[in-house]
Formats: sequence, C-alpha cells, structure tokens
Amino acid sequence: MSAFAPVLIAGDWRASLDARAGFRAFDPISAGEIGPEFPVSGAADVEAALAAASAAATQLAACEPARIAAFLDAYAAAIEADAATLVDLAHAETALPREPRLAKVELPRTTNQLRQAAQAVRASSWTQPTLDTQAGLRSHFAPLNKPVLVFGPNNFPFAFNAIAGSDFASAIAARNPVIAKAHPSHPATSRRLAELAHRAVLDAGLPAASVQMLYHVDNALGAKLAGDARLGAIGFTGSRAGGLALKAAADAAGVPIYAEMSSVNPVFLLPGALAERGAELAQEFFASCTMGSGQFCTNPGIVIVPHGADGDAFVSATSALFANAPANVLFSQGVLDHFRRGLATLTDAGARVLAEGQADARPGYRQAPTLLGVDAQQFLAAAQALQTEVFGPASLIVRTQNIEDMIAVAQSFDGNLTGTLYTSKQSDIDEAAAAKIAQALRPRIGRLIGNKMPTGVAVSAAMNHGGPYPSTGHPGFTAVGMPAAIRRFAALHCYDNVPAALLPAELRDGNPGGMQRLIDGRWTTDDVGKKS
Amino acid sequence: MSAFAPVLIAGDWRASLDARAGFRAFDPISAGEIGPEFPVSGAADVEAALAAASAAATQLAACEPARIAAFLDAYAAAIEADAATLVDLAHAETALPREPRLAKVELPRTTNQLRQAAQAVRASSWTQPTLDTQAGLRSHFAPLNKPVLVFGPNNFPFAFNAIAGSDFASAIAARNPVIAKAHPSHPATSRRLAELAHRAVLDAGLPAASVQMLYHVDNALGAKLAGDARLGAIGFTGSRAGGLALKAAADAAGVPIYAEMSSVNPVFLLPGALAERGAELAQEFFASCTMGSGQFCTNPGIVIVPHGADGDAFVSATSALFANAPANVLFSQGVLDHFRRGLATLTDAGARVLAEGQADARPGYRQAPTLLGVDAQQFLAAAQALQTEVFGPASLIVRTQNIEDMIAVAQSFDGNLTGTLYTSKQSDIDEAAAAKIAQALRPRIGRLIGNKMPTGVAVSAAMNHGGPYPSTGHPGFTAVGMPAAIRRFAALHCYDNVPAALLPAELRDGNPGGMQRLIDGRWTTDDVGKKS
Repeated sequence: MSAFAPVLIAGDWRASLDARAGFRAFDPISAGEIGPEFPVSGAADVEAALAAASAAATQLAACEPARIAAFLDAYAAAIEADAATLVDLAHAETALPREPRLAKVELPRTTNQLRQAAQAVRASSWTQPTLDTQAGLRSHFAPLNKPVLVFGPNNFPFAFNAIAGSDFASAIAARNPVIAKAHPSHPATSRRLAELAHRAVLDAGLPAASVQMLYHVDNALGAKLAGDARLGAIGFTGSRAGGLALKAAADAAGVPIYAEMSSVNPVFLLPGALAERGAELAQEFFASCTMGSGQFCTNPGIVIVPHGADGDAFVSATSALFANAPANVLFSQGVLDHFRRGLATLTDAGARVLAEGQADARPGYRQAPTLLGVDAQQFLAAAQALQTEVFGPASLIVRTQNIEDMIAVAQSFDGNLTGTLYTSKQSDIDEAAAAKIAQALRPRIGRLIGNKMPTGVAVSAAMNHGGPYPSTGHPGFTAVGMPAAIRRFAALHCYDNVPAALLPAELRDGNPGGMQRLIDGRWTTDDVGKKS
Repeated sequence: MSAFAPVLIAGDWRASLDARAGFRAFDPISAGEIGPEFPVSGAADVEAALAAASAAATQLAACEPARIAAFLDAYAAAIEADAATLVDLAHAETALPREPRLAKVELPRTTNQLRQAAQAVRASSWTQPTLDTQAGLRSHFAPLNKPVLVFGPNNFPFAFNAIAGSDFASAIAARNPVIAKAHPSHPATSRRLAELAHRAVLDAGLPAASVQMLYHVDNALGAKLAGDARLGAIGFTGSRAGGLALKAAADAAGVPIYAEMSSVNPVFLLPGALAERGAELAQEFFASCTMGSGQFCTNPGIVIVPHGADGDAFVSATSALFANAPANVLFSQGVLDHFRRGLATLTDAGARVLAEGQADARPGYRQAPTLLGVDAQQFLAAAQALQTEVFGPASLIVRTQNIEDMIAVAQSFDGNLTGTLYTSKQSDIDEAAAAKIAQALRPRIGRLIGNKMPTGVAVSAAMNHGGPYPSTGHPGFTAVGMPAAIRRFAALHCYDNVPAALLPAELRDGNPGGMQRLIDGRWTTDDVGKKS
C-alpha cells in the first residue's frame, strides 16, 4: 500500500489504511497515464476520516471567526504563490489551457472566492443575526457541528475542487470540517491543493482534521459514506446519475445534500436580436459552446432559433464555425463515452447532425464539436429525450415558427440552472415576446440571463448557481456566491430568554464590529436599544 | 357518495369523486362519534386537486402581492368574526378547553400569524432582494410556481391547521396554491375554516383553486401524493413515522419537504435554580407537562434533575402534583394507544413510574398524567429507547450525580426542537455549568431556552421552531415565525444582465415602497444609485 500517494486523514498525510486498488491520472492529450499512483480508499479510510472530522467539528465550531477568515485568506495566498505548479499539474491532468483559462481565469476565481468567504465570515453576513427584543428571542445561522462531505466535479480543477472550491470555502466558512472527495481525473492537482490547505490549517491553528481528503472511493462506498448520519451536509457537483444516487443515500439518513447535477441552459434568440446581430451571435454562441471543450454546467446546450432568413443565416454561420473547428480534447475516456452516448440519444430521438468539426486521429480524448438541429414540433414530441444533457462541445438548435412555438418549447423544459434571452438592443421589437418567454422560463430556471451566453458564473452575493430539480436537489440554494452559498452548511440556532453570558457574541446587545443585524424588523448596524 | 360532506377541490365545494369510505369525528370526552360523515378521498380527488392547483400556480405567482396580503388579512378577520362557532367545533372535536386555550390563545395566535404573513408580503421581507450593481445581478426569493401540500397535525385545530396555520400562511404568502390535507380528528373545524378561506379567496380575486382541502386519504395514497413531482414543496407536522414515510416519497421525487416530526425537549434544572425555587419549578413543570393534555411538540418530555435534597424535594413535589392530577382527555383512541405504547417502551427500557394521576373510568380517551424516573447511568445505557417521544401528559425525570452526568445526558440526545436550562436568578452559581451544558446541547437543538418551559412558541422573526434531524428534516428552517417560515416555500430567482422591463418590481432601481434590500453588501431602503 505504501506504493500509493498518501491520503490526508485525521490531520496528517498517511498511507491509505485499506486501499482497494490504485489509479493514475491520464493526460487527455495522449490518453496516457501520468503521475504517481493514488489509492482508491476503502471503508477503513472512510471511517477514519469520519471519526476525525466528527471529533474536530465541535472544536472548529467554537473557533473565533477571525481565525477561520485568516485560514481562508492564507490558503488563497498560498494558492497564488504556488500558481505556476498548480497550473502545470491541472493542465497536465485536464488539458485545459494554461492561459487564459487556468492561470488567468480559474485560479484567480478560486482565490477570490476564498477571500469572499473570509469577508463573509468577518462581516457575519452569512449568519443573518435576527433579534426580537420584545419577545426576548435572538437567532442566527450557525455551524452544523458535523462534518460536510464535498464531492468535486471533473470540470473545474480549482474553482469547484472539493478541497478548494465554492463548497469547500462555504463549508469551512460556516466552521464545519470538510471531508473532500477529490475527482479522480485530477488527483495530483487535488493533492497539491490539499497540501496547501493542510499547511494553512495548521498555521491558522484550526483543528488539524478540519480538512481531509480522499482521492477516490468506489460508488458503493461513496453511497455508504453519503448516507452516514454523522455528516452534517453534503455538497456535490457532477452528473445527474451520480447526484441522484448520493441524494437517495443522504435523504434516507436525514443528511441535507446540495447536488448540482445537470442543465441544458436553453438560449432563445429573438427575431429582433437575430436581425440586428445574427453573425455576432453565431460567433458568441460557438465560442461559449466550445470553450473548455464545452465542459461546463452552464454550457448552452439548446438554442432556440426562429425559422426564416435571419435564422437560416445564423444556422449556416454557426454550422460553418462548427465544421471548421478542430477536435476538442475532453477530460477522460468516461466523458468521451458519455458524450457519444448523449449524441446517440439525441439523434435517436430525431435530431439531425448539422455540422461536425474536424476529425483528429491522434491519441487522446478527442471529439469534434457537434451541432445538431431539430424542428420545434419534433422537439416537443420528444422533449424528454431531446433535453438530455450532452456534456461537452455539442448543442441542439431548435427551429421555431413563431413566438407561440418558443413559449411551448420554454414550457417543456425540466429544471435548469439558466435560461437566456437575446433581444434587440436597438428597439423594443422583442420586448413583448421576451416577456412571455421569460414568464414561461422563470419557474424552470435559477438564473434568467439577458443578451449574453450562460457560461459565465460571477461570484456575487446576487448570483444564483442553482435551479429547480433536477438541475439541483433544492430550488432555494445557490452553489456559488457569498454569503448565500455558506448558508447551505448552516443550522438555524435560536436563543429564547437566554442570559447574555450564554449568547454568542453576535447576538449580544453590543455590536462593536458593526455587523448588519435584523433587529425588530429593521436591518441595522446599531447596538440593541440604540436609536440611530 | 353524496352522503358525505363535500370536499374543496378546483375552486368549488363538491362531492368527493371517489370516496373510498366515510369517517366521522369523535368527541374525545365520550368517545362517541359526532358530526357529519366526511369522505376518505381516493385517487380521483387527489388528481383533481393536483391538476387544479398546478393550473392555478402560474396565475397565483403573478398576482400582485397586495392582493395576497388582502386575502390573508380578510381571512384573519373572517376567522375572528366566526370565532364562537369555530371554538365550539374545535372544542367538540378535540376536547381542548374553550378558554383560555381555544378562544383566547390559539385562535388569536392563528389570526396574528396570518396578519404577520400579510405584513411580510407587503414589506417583501421574505424575498430578500439582493442586488449587485457592478455585476448586473439581482436576485430574490420568489414563488415555487407549483402547489404546496400541507399536512396538518392533530394538536392545533387552528394554529397549525393545514388550511389556516403557519404552513398554510407561509405557502400562500409566497404565492403558491395550497392543497391542505386536514387532520381527520377535527374535520368539521377544518371544513369551517376552509369555507372561510374559500370565501376570502374569491373575495380577494385570487384564482379559485388557490386553496383546496381534502379531509383524509389513506397512507398509501398520501405517500403517492407526497411523491408527485408536480408539487413544489410539502409542509408536514405530525409523528415521526408519518413524517419519515412522506419524506421518503417526497425525496425520491425531488420535492422539498419540511417535516416537523418529534422532540423530547430536555429541560435541565441546575442546582442553583433548584435550591432557589424548586417548589415553583415543580408547579411550572407540572403545568407545562399537562397543559393541553401534554399534546405539544414542545412538551417537556425529559427533565434532568440532580440527586440530593433539592432534587429529591423537586421530585416529591412533582410526584404529588402528578398523583393528585385528574385524568387528561387525549385527542383520539390512536393518541391514547400510542401514548401507552410509549410508556411501555420507557418502562421496558428501565424507567420506573414515579407517580400516576387519578384513574377515570368514564368513557372518553382518558389517561392519568404519568411521571417516570430513571438514573443518569441507566438513561445513558438505553438512551435511544428512553428518548422515545411519548406524546401526551408524561415526562421522564433523569437523576444526575454531577454536572458531568448532565453533560453526558445532553450529549446523548438526538435532534430536538428545544433544550432548556433553568439557572439561579439570584447568583452566578450555575453559570459555568450552564455554559458547558449549553455547549453540549447547542448542536442537538433548534432553540435554547432560559428559565421557562418550552411549551410557548412565539410567532416572531427570531423564532426557530425547527431543529436537527430527526426533530425535523432540515436544520436550516423554522416552521413558525415570519418571514423565515415563508422562505421554505420559495425558489431563488436570479436576473443576470436582464433589461429593466423583465425585472420584477422589487428588483428594479426604484424602491417606492421603501422595502429593505441588500444592495452591494449593504441593507438599505434606498433606490439603486442613491447614496443616503
């Protein structure tokens, strides 16, 4: 077993207790194995991690928030200082471009997110202190006092990594220990991040087991772990099948799970927008669909385009862009297989291939970007199959006769993360139709977007990276954006007629830090009893 | 079928489409059947209600909030105007005292709750408008656009009634249609409330199917209904077994369920408090345990009492109160049977009966209040069995040798709604111990209470009537208190770079109503762009 890279359990890097097997990362460009051998953990590792995290939970919950914030800031700084190595590792394991993607976009996004979490901790903005002075009641969001299990996805080796991403930052910000289940397609990147996190934990004086990481477990053990009642909550980003299996296990144990699972992110091009800037939209759509080889949860998977000359021009321009595109490199053989099965599902349901990019016979997980098309009537007749998420560089164009068609298509969607409307910028010609389509889309999506592609997800207090089932497991929570994302990993704690000595600092009368609190129905930074 | 009372489906009172059987209410005092025969609805009623509510959902979501508030206020006024009849009906069906309980406490609480919901609607306090002007992102909580199913409990014929209580008010405040599943132990009360609600719906001009009610369905159909993906969410108050069965069905369909299920509400009497006012505490505890025949979710089911003279005096005083108490009337044969099974579970696990109230051989669901006792070591050895909720007038006294015992007992609890500490009011003698017990209790309870019994649940923005699993299904939500309770029935909606015309009123730049919004990190009533 000592042949495998060590796991981070119980505050230390140590050999897996019961590695069932080893695995290595693959270079997506060559399809060849790279890097050291990592263990597939067995039940003993899982038990050790759970026990250590449970023991650390009470201590971590009792930590001064300032210390948590210091950890988050120091970890962000350590990631920046190690950027060159991290980018090299992530590039080797994912084939994502070093620049701009990894070095200039994703890594800064990751450190920014950690720092926004630190800021939310300092300001207590995630805890929503709420006081009713007449009733003698005070409440706020507080740590779960139990560990949070985080499953990271394949597509963001930094920004959604189980040991560095939004779920990680959110769970730690709420003072819960994290058990990170890294994604096995980028184990060396995850290991490097975990080393930095571990060091920052020790430096900040947090309990050593506040942060633990396993590289891989098999599906059965993953489900067993997700169903362990010692967990306070679970964060998951990944496939619908994986998410639903974990959700079933977690639900049965009463463990809240926040699963971000799947989305086709419909984009509606209204007639005025097409007439005005169809060629530009073709470029914009093609770039969004193939960026990162299309491996985004908010990839524009379905584009709704009116029939007629402007729509035809858009489709031909887009088809040309797809046809001329080089093959994209996907993350893994699994992603490639899944992509091809998805394409087959769409074509079996009546979609036609409009354009395929260049073939590339070199080794590696290469796939030509693929544009498909279908008529609105066909789409509506097989809407379930035709809204299958095809994770990768593919989109389905749905051609509509009129606005009523667009509305009917909008009404046929399952829960999605986003829905987008492109409208004329020069006139109000699309306004009435846009309002109707927006109304049809609104209950089916988390984020309604105007005149830009859905692939950007800003880290903002007003972001919603969430949506109705089955895009996620709960329509009220976002996976991105501080402080709301932190609140997923919190319990509501109320104090009723409790002596001041037993109140947490932020619920006492005085408010020396000037945090925003809801006192007797009014948000204020005042002390209790003071009229401003 | 026309022999049965009508159900409220699809905007009208009509005969059940497929009543499987009929049932009548029982007078708990005589155990005799009273009132008309009500239908046990079959699948056709359920389908009709789901279809009508689904159709009404979009319309209701698009309603002016002012109209929703008007409905809530008008319904509250109608309940007040009909108070005499409602109190008579509820008294006949539950045997709860007309005064003070039904007329002076529960009915005013119910109307107050409806009015607080109206106020939260007018102020948009439940929607938490959050704006990021730099990123062009605006978000808020919004209607689910799907119906909410509410299961009412037996123990609050008004304040938690599926057609009038907190879940009802919360779901409607968030502009979701409600399908109420009344509790079959008070069908006539529920029918009367539904008549008032229905009339208020029509008067306010809400979609007629905004409010529907079924009296009863069998367990299998209830689970099928709870697992229908057309539902937006479910509110449930009742037994753990019932709640878990519905939760399993809802979870599998991706329907969020807020289940308030069970709690023993441990009460710790610290040595200083006992020495200071033990006799008073005995009275207070006895009153709380037997009020409403002990049929409260926040009944003090376990009381932790130190060994020694003061503890002995408390136990004898309490035992005398129990021994002299008349038999209590419970809601139903089912509650009585469940109570007796619960007592048997406790005695089988080692608890001794310390005192039993008067026997009463008259008909009716009569039960002597029962005080049980156990030593801390025995309690810890069988903590699971001994923290079985016994719904009704019973409590278990756990005797402890020292503070360490108290902490160990606190640490043995499952999730509970409340935990209470009684401490000295004259000195700080209990302070250090209280802090330790509070720390042990905190992660296991929703509400920490000081120096009063847990049976009062104020309707306040700072209340938490919720707690960790299995007291409820999610530790982050409260079933009581506006506006937080409303947020359970809401979806997070984000607008990203969306033209002003497509923004809901409360997310636009102007804020003529002066609602509180979080703009660029600061809570303010200002318009966007205005510096105050």
